Amino acid sequence: MNIISNVKLGEILDTLIAQYPEHSFRSIALKDMTEEDKESMDILISHDGRVDEAFLSQCPNLKWIAWYAAGVNKLPLETIKERNIILTNARGVHKVQISEYIFSYIMTDYKNVLEYYSLQQAKGFKTDIRHKELFEQTICFIGTGEIPSYAARIAQAFNMKVIGINTTGQDKTHFDEVYAIEERIQAFEQSDIIVNVLPETASTIDLLKAEDFKAMGSDALFINVGRGTVVKEDILMQALKDKVIRFACLDVFYNEPLEADHPLYTLDNVIMTPHITGLSTHYNQRATNIFIDNMNMGIDNKDNFKNIVDLNKGY
Amino acid sequence: MNIISNVKLGEILDTLIAQYPEHSFRSIALKDMTEEDKESMDILISHDGRVDEAFLSQCPNLKWIAWYAAGVNKLPLETIKERNIILTNARGVHKVQISEYIFSYIMTDYKNVLEYYSLQQAKGFKTDIRHKELFEQTICFIGTGEIPSYAARIAQAFNMKVIGINTTGQDKTHFDEVYAIEERIQAFEQSDIIVNVLPETASTIDLLKAEDFKAMGSDALFINVGRGTVVKEDILMQALKDKVIRFACLDVFYNEPLEADHPLYTLDNVIMTPHITGLSTHYNQRATNIFIDNMNMGIDNKDNFKNIVDLNKGY
Repeated sequence: MNIISNVKLGEILDTLIAQYPEHSFRSIALKDMTEEDKESMDILISHDGRVDEAFLSQCPNLKWIAWYAAGVNKLPLETIKERNIILTNARGVHKVQISEYIFSYIMTDYKNVLEYYSLQQAKGFKTDIRHKELFEQTICFIGTGEIPSYAARIAQAFNMKVIGINTTGQDKTHFDEVYAIEERIQAFEQSDIIVNVLPETASTIDLLKAEDFKAMGSDALFINVGRGTVVKEDILMQALKDKVIRFACLDVFYNEPLEADHPLYTLDNVIMTPHITGLSTHYNQRATNIFIDNMNMGIDNKDNFKNIVDLNKGY
Repeated sequence: MNIISNVKLGEILDTLIAQYPEHSFRSIALKDMTEEDKESMDILISHDGRVDEAFLSQCPNLKWIAWYAAGVNKLPLETIKERNIILTNARGVHKVQISEYIFSYIMTDYKNVLEYYSLQQAKGFKTDIRHKELFEQTICFIGTGEIPSYAARIAQAFNMKVIGINTTGQDKTHFDEVYAIEERIQAFEQSDIIVNVLPETASTIDLLKAEDFKAMGSDALFINVGRGTVVKEDILMQALKDKVIRFACLDVFYNEPLEADHPLYTLDNVIMTPHITGLSTHYNQRATNIFIDNMNMGIDNKDNFKNIVDLNKGY
């Protein structure tokens, strides 16, 4: 089969070529693909935003898109469904790096990393900074999928109480308690740290309201590594400005990139990173591990593929 | 019995008074104690450096010193032994807060916390910072006591490989491998993060030599939350200056407090905190939990006391 990767796989490509001598593996940027490339292509590895209806119409033999990102909402899902093209994504590939960043944010806040750095800059040795402990704090994850499950296990190792929030309130491993999304106020009221890990879907946009932040309370740390659209910006700004919650660590924003004159920059109780928690030097390898498992399964066994996207649900 | 605490226990004292109506609990600073206080005292709760031979000679009835610190090397151990006074200490009370700080240091380094903070200050959103992952890194603890054991469990939750170093190389729970102190070069060579947690004893002073840092290697992160005397300052300075190791996070120093003109302040690959990782708002409660367990055991059962100091070994 002809397999083309729009993703620059480097050494990983060499491994694939060596592992599957019966197939043709080539790395070509989408914009550099010839008509012949498109016509003969059986499998596409990509996360290029230009994979649209027009592009797919030039690829009559395409049987499988191995999408090297988690979100598929911008792909022409109807066409993919009609053409009976297999679509797999990279969900689960983010759990390690995003979970680690959740604890980086918690440490930065709880252990006064920036205050101690200022003290070092001032060459001072005396301090009355009193750091907080994770020990016996309650952490609440909005979402109980692969990322929060991985993070929950770490939280338990720190002897934290772990609460999860999902659609139905169904129990999950590594969570001490799980609440349904409608009962979330109860969960927030007893939590010290609230972490949003939800993807963007019709039901998560603008989910969190002023009363949610009020329930989190004035000592709460709010972390958002899901999507910025989970809360309207003016609600979040007001909660931080009025100290309805104590502190926020934000990696995602309603509109990205965040403009330099954005009022969030004026707050003293927020740490921000530019949507980086999902990045990893291991990303392509992890996505390729899923690809290889599926290659070994074989296209004829696609029902046993890992990370198949449900084209009706869109994830 | 007459029990006097030099430690300001606040609400904890009220709890003790309520819990033991048959005994007298009072909180008095050592310098404010009257002759009568000293004469009538049965039990002393303290971590006051002025508990010396002269002081003890004024306390003829003293049966038990509940020392609310781990190190007892400055107490008059010979006199305590001769007088047959029970001495308990607060070892184990530090494991939570010091372990959490170890991961705070790792996150600060691995997740580029300070670089992202600079980016936020510059109101920038684009970055080519590439953070490291804890996942599958190897962490080596010099010491396998209560603190590293607690930290090792957390490291395993992050899917790290955990190596321990102790006197004999004897296996310990939560460590994947344990090396004897003489074999430490082998351990350092395969480790990405090396954490010293050793106390100061005759055999740990100046333990680490230039060849130890060479074995750690140019990508290594060295963390010291034990005692500064584990490595001579010029050896550590040289290793950092010449990038023999990549980075260091230091909470302890050969001479404390660190002077403002200390050359360590000139390095760009070191994070320093002023000997604070053992501090905790829960400290007195945790030390008191040990005290209560022993109180409930009763002085006549002192052989079953927790945290008894071996007066011959001095710890």
